[in-house]
Amino acid sequence: MIEAGNLFAKIIAQAEQEEITILAEKAGTRIERIVSTGQASPPGFWYDQASTEWVVLLAGRAALRFENELEPRLLGHGDYLEIPAHARHRVEWSDAERPTVWLAVHFAA
Amino acid sequence: MIEAGNLFAKIIAQAEQEEITILAEKAGTRIERIVSTGQASPPGFWYDQASTEWVVLLAGRAALRFENELEPRLLGHGDYLEIPAHARHRVEWSDAERPTVWLAVHFAA
Repeated sequence: MIEAGNLFAKIIAQAEQEEITILAEKAGTRIERIVSTGQASPPGFWYDQASTEWVVLLAGRAALRFENELEPRLLGHGDYLEIPAHARHRVEWSDAERPTVWLAVHFAA
Repeated sequence: MIEAGNLFAKIIAQAEQEEITILAEKAGTRIERIVSTGQASPPGFWYDQASTEWVVLLAGRAALRFENELEPRLLGHGDYLEIPAHARHRVEWSDAERPTVWLAVHFAA
């Protein structure tokens, strides 16, 4: 059987929390859809991940801040970046007007 | 340094061949952007890959045919599927009017 779906299906326009859906997982690598609806990382919170994450923004807008950078990076349609393991980062804000859809690949460590 | 870019940048509207760009590669898993501009797999050709490929179509349209299915699958914006290792498949056609942009994750075998 072929697993199949649509990345933009079943998006809740206003959820309380970010919604994470695992789309595929193999050999320790995981592909996720993340939908943000205005959420930001909690004040003072930094993601510090054991493995590399590759992420692309496919709808909406957001700002991603790295601890070792002065300014947040503004991300729009199609913008991608590779977050090295242990590069501390946070979501400063996400679009409050419409869902922000990310595709994230968490590489096996 | 953070590797970053845009998935829809530098797309050649009419190329002779499909264009494949490696966006990230880690622990045997590879993320590629594939741009098709009307190409199809050659007649009688089937992809037969040693590892699982997860693919999503992010612009344009295409039809993907699996050898063990009667009809090709029509893919539009956001449609994704997981192609198991050794599931023989081919691109029947891709949009002739505008570039078709795929994001493919080739999992480590």
